[in-house]
Amino acid sequence: MALIVHKYGGTSMGSTERIKNVARRVAKWHDAGHQIVVVPSAMSGETNRLIALAKEIQNPPDPRELDMIASTGEQVSVGLLSMALQAIGKDAVSYAGWQVAIKTDSAFTKARIQSIDDEKVKRDLDSGKIVIITGFQGVDENDNISTLGRGGSDTSAVAIAAALKAAECLIYTDVDGVYTTDPRVVSEARRLKAITFEEMLELASLGSKVLQTRSVEFAGNYRVPTRVLSSLTDPDLDLETEANSGTLISFEEDTHMEQAVISGIAFNRDEAKITVLGVPDRPGVAYHILGPVAEANVEVDMIIQNQSVDGKTDFTFTVSRNDYQKALDVLHSAKDEVGHSTIVGDAKVSKISVVGVGMRSHVGVASKMFRVLSEEGINILMISTSEIKISVLIDEKYMELAVRALHKAFELEKDVAARVE
Amino acid sequence: MALIVHKYGGTSMGSTERIKNVARRVAKWHDAGHQIVVVPSAMSGETNRLIALAKEIQNPPDPRELDMIASTGEQVSVGLLSMALQAIGKDAVSYAGWQVAIKTDSAFTKARIQSIDDEKVKRDLDSGKIVIITGFQGVDENDNISTLGRGGSDTSAVAIAAALKAAECLIYTDVDGVYTTDPRVVSEARRLKAITFEEMLELASLGSKVLQTRSVEFAGNYRVPTRVLSSLTDPDLDLETEANSGTLISFEEDTHMEQAVISGIAFNRDEAKITVLGVPDRPGVAYHILGPVAEANVEVDMIIQNQSVDGKTDFTFTVSRNDYQKALDVLHSAKDEVGHSTIVGDAKVSKISVVGVGMRSHVGVASKMFRVLSEEGINILMISTSEIKISVLIDEKYMELAVRALHKAFELEKDVAARVE
Repeated sequence: MALIVHKYGGTSMGSTERIKNVARRVAKWHDAGHQIVVVPSAMSGETNRLIALAKEIQNPPDPRELDMIASTGEQVSVGLLSMALQAIGKDAVSYAGWQVAIKTDSAFTKARIQSIDDEKVKRDLDSGKIVIITGFQGVDENDNISTLGRGGSDTSAVAIAAALKAAECLIYTDVDGVYTTDPRVVSEARRLKAITFEEMLELASLGSKVLQTRSVEFAGNYRVPTRVLSSLTDPDLDLETEANSGTLISFEEDTHMEQAVISGIAFNRDEAKITVLGVPDRPGVAYHILGPVAEANVEVDMIIQNQSVDGKTDFTFTVSRNDYQKALDVLHSAKDEVGHSTIVGDAKVSKISVVGVGMRSHVGVASKMFRVLSEEGINILMISTSEIKISVLIDEKYMELAVRALHKAFELEKDVAARVE
Repeated sequence: MALIVHKYGGTSMGSTERIKNVARRVAKWHDAGHQIVVVPSAMSGETNRLIALAKEIQNPPDPRELDMIASTGEQVSVGLLSMALQAIGKDAVSYAGWQVAIKTDSAFTKARIQSIDDEKVKRDLDSGKIVIITGFQGVDENDNISTLGRGGSDTSAVAIAAALKAAECLIYTDVDGVYTTDPRVVSEARRLKAITFEEMLELASLGSKVLQTRSVEFAGNYRVPTRVLSSLTDPDLDLETEANSGTLISFEEDTHMEQAVISGIAFNRDEAKITVLGVPDRPGVAYHILGPVAEANVEVDMIIQNQSVDGKTDFTFTVSRNDYQKALDVLHSAKDEVGHSTIVGDAKVSKISVVGVGMRSHVGVASKMFRVLSEEGINILMISTSEIKISVLIDEKYMELAVRALHKAFELEKDVAARVE
């Protein structure tokens, strides 16, 4: 018997029939003697509907009022799920974030959880109730409703699991786990049974959009064992099988885990590269270029500054393709401050990253990666490295080819034991 | 300059365009120097949509969870209206019932307001903000969300006006006031400039569904001057004209009010009559008949018990036509306890009432009413009287005829000064 947190996404909650299936699955875990807290998202489409309504009235909408509106989708979900559990004979109770209370800062639409009061929930669990708590939202110190931003229900679930010291947080979603890479690109891609938080963080932030990045950070910081698993299996699936399915996100230090050099290959198609040429090389140049870009709310990813020649340097960085034109406009109007001669850009580039904590103790991952790409005739435009990942920027037309070649070269289709590493 | 509460119904809030119109109207009052609190309903159709969702899952739905769900409609409305005001340059803030806080008992789906904390609202008003508060809902002592039942936003508005000691509570709705009777039945029906709380209470509970009955009780108990007026006029209508439009519900003691003997004629088409024949006349007979009916949640209106003959009596009462079959079924299965010989019923009857506080000091209203009906050849099936109203039950096919004849006989189409009373 353990305390377990379940999280269900908007697709799983997408209709009253599906909500009834969620209830059957939850009841199965409760029947097995576990204490269960459920964190459901809003019914699919609902949050978008609410935000669209708001934007018809005020654009951009006032963040506090937008949270007032957007938070209602999850409130409906918890009430419906509680009813669905009661309808099959379970004692259940729903809470909005403020009722628990889940306290956040006042950064409306992107608030961060500060604390969770677990008293009420513990009391309900001890009396045999299944507790259902809204994801995505909390309340600030002045009793204003706040939301955590898109995908925030993952973070809510992990934070609640941390506060309750849950044995595991199960994130039910429409994929059955984390893969070595996208199976739509590499058919041999293999589901990982386990992955470390650090690897998951790199994979999540690099575009394997299984979990919200912040929820992974939270899981890592508070050491919450978190499992990503499918909500599309039969709700009556054998509990033991279900409990071991998906991908467990755990701690590197857990020595029982199989540990590969490389865990997976992440990629992001929608990158754009901007190069500012002939910039006078003086202190503060990076700030003068990136300051205005950041002020325009454009996120910069990879950054390279070339060796200076004759007191002039070139400065290259990447942004999301959606922000490409905005970043160019900002730089053109900042020409006087920056003092550059010209700007060139390329909106048809992609980023590929090999990720793995094993890289720390193995040399040669980078050179193997560069060799593989070179053998395929793929030119590397930019390189960036961290302790557990190597990313390269390449022409987008070679992306699939590069991912397949790297997946094969690092033998990711094989179990760790079968690899030559 | 005064503190004024505005209430807008679901039709007025029915689309983003209409919400923008509400904002313009509210801003006009604020521009004139008034402090404004607005209580909007959910967008039309939204509460029904939410209740239908709930019933797909659990029927009847758990009351606490239903309130969790149903309360979200108003939460969306307040956020949208706040945005609409901000979009035209007004400083506005929205609150859910629990944020104010509006405290209620725990009778979910039909809770009653116990107290309202006005501190936060007063502070906002004093800083120049327009405050928007959800109608229909509050929070119980354990922080559970409660709703006040259908039409509850009227009650919220009046209760908030009472707590804030507002100068007036303006109920904007899709009719332009309270009429001497339904203009669809009597084309000469006249809008009343003023009416007492007691009269309004009789008219509201008798089927002139302009205001929720409980809101009128609240207005009477806390002496909140309340005005019913149209939300369909041009939002930019001259403020003075708007402020004097509609019907003011005020106190009988206000001597400045024109005071007629009869204010209006109410009617209800959907009545049904049930007679239990040959009941042994012993103590508790009324309880034995009406107890099971009440337990089945059927509301009984008029009641008559005939003079006993040979130890047997007849017992007649009326119910809403929707409950007719249910009431018959209940009585048939209670035959052993009641001991009656037979049951007869008529589901094609209507009730007509003449209402007016002036009746108290004027004799002859009842006899005039009976004479008029008699001259039209209309048979009276049942009679019931109170201090300020006389109700009769008649065959439904004579209803329009009776209303028109009574309206004419009491000269309701004329101003009070022009009547012969």
